[in-house]
Amino acid sequence: MIRRGFQVAARLGHHGALPGGPYILPRFSPASAFGSSMDSLVSRFCQEKTDLKNYTLPNASWCPDMLNLYHEFLEKTKADGWIRLPSFKSNRNHIQGLKLPLALTVTSDKSDCRIFTRCIETEGQGYEYVIFFHSSKKKSVCLFQPGPYLEGPPRVRFAHGGSLAAMIDETFSKTVYLAGEGLFTLNLSIRFKNLIRVGSLAVLNIDVEKIEDQKLYISCVAQSVDQQTVYAKASGTFLQLQLEEDSSQY
Amino acid sequence: MIRRGFQVAARLGHHGALPGGPYILPRFSPASAFGSSMDSLVSRFCQEKTDLKNYTLPNASWCPDMLNLYHEFLEKTKADGWIRLPSFKSNRNHIQGLKLPLALTVTSDKSDCRIFTRCIETEGQGYEYVIFFHSSKKKSVCLFQPGPYLEGPPRVRFAHGGSLAAMIDETFSKTVYLAGEGLFTLNLSIRFKNLIRVGSLAVLNIDVEKIEDQKLYISCVAQSVDQQTVYAKASGTFLQLQLEEDSSQY
Repeated sequence: MIRRGFQVAARLGHHGALPGGPYILPRFSPASAFGSSMDSLVSRFCQEKTDLKNYTLPNASWCPDMLNLYHEFLEKTKADGWIRLPSFKSNRNHIQGLKLPLALTVTSDKSDCRIFTRCIETEGQGYEYVIFFHSSKKKSVCLFQPGPYLEGPPRVRFAHGGSLAAMIDETFSKTVYLAGEGLFTLNLSIRFKNLIRVGSLAVLNIDVEKIEDQKLYISCVAQSVDQQTVYAKASGTFLQLQLEEDSSQY
Repeated sequence: MIRRGFQVAARLGHHGALPGGPYILPRFSPASAFGSSMDSLVSRFCQEKTDLKNYTLPNASWCPDMLNLYHEFLEKTKADGWIRLPSFKSNRNHIQGLKLPLALTVTSDKSDCRIFTRCIETEGQGYEYVIFFHSSKKKSVCLFQPGPYLEGPPRVRFAHGGSLAAMIDETFSKTVYLAGEGLFTLNLSIRFKNLIRVGSLAVLNIDVEKIEDQKLYISCVAQSVDQQTVYAKASGTFLQLQLEEDSSQY
């Protein structure tokens, strides 16, 4: 999150709060930053992981709308430039595909951490989602089906607004990282329009609007599959960070 | 969420999507709206529930900062006007204390729904939080300790920005409801400043800024217990809705 992300790393390094230190702080080098091609970022992020559960595969809890649209986009991945992003229990499972500084890693940590949007493992109860990314168009589509553990208003089976906010933030994060090494959320703004029924599909259409002054500006429209109901409109700003390890330091 | 909340209820009623219908739609009556006193709202919301687990009670996972501040505020509840808000597995457990129209209830629903911010039951793994509310000051303080299932960036043990967004939205929701019958989130805007370490305490200071034209404007500063680190600043707008059942219709 934002420019103070480095301050966070610095504080952790200074206080030795993370096990396995000392840590080398990331060096921000605007001259050489953002040099990775999008293809390189995508290929590293999406590498095969045969030994880990990929949560983007369909399961019995998916509603027909979600299944149909999933297969529609899966077809597009064959020729149309769309990529299905893998999703594991923790972001750390993408670690070989992500560029991260050692200051931001805990290599000895074996604890059971989970990325927030995969915090509930029981199929259909929490987050069911899959993100498709189009590199040349700099856009994503997230198919999101909230389960009954994401409840908001009581007894009505509508999802909590915060669960949609988190889904938008997560989809923004993955999109801006792959589209331009965006890493830390600066701002997130959401206008809620309608409630999403638990068990139904919301389609999040995400577009990177521009990349300027080391910031990525991104937008989202979340709507029903028939596009007749807008659930929310959102915008976000992310900071670009060049986080490739500098091998000369080790 | 917003004025279209009624449209949602209307659609559900029209399509008969909810079991146990038919449903009487809530009637918005500006002339008589917002007539409940805050004391009445609070007392109905906070009624004793001896047979349900109240998640606001301390457990072994709470860090010392959280425990200390919890007891500090608990002392304030004895004389200073602060109230500890109970928190159950689902908002439906507050149903006797909340005013809801029948159109927004599913009385026959026995499924295992959970409010999103209590979706993980294992102590310390997900959301640990307690909200204290001050009715005359129209403000809240939320003590929030994210667990390892709320992870964001990989291998660094920081909470997902979306988990903080959801925590803010939930605290906003409870506060605006009790402060002025605010019910549907119109807007939520967050500026992220620093990352929150998993297992550490974030203190959310929430203020209702004004109530105008049937909208409640609310703000939040989330910071460390020593107030030296600001994690995020947020603002939100909620719509007031008069949702008391009209007994003459039944």
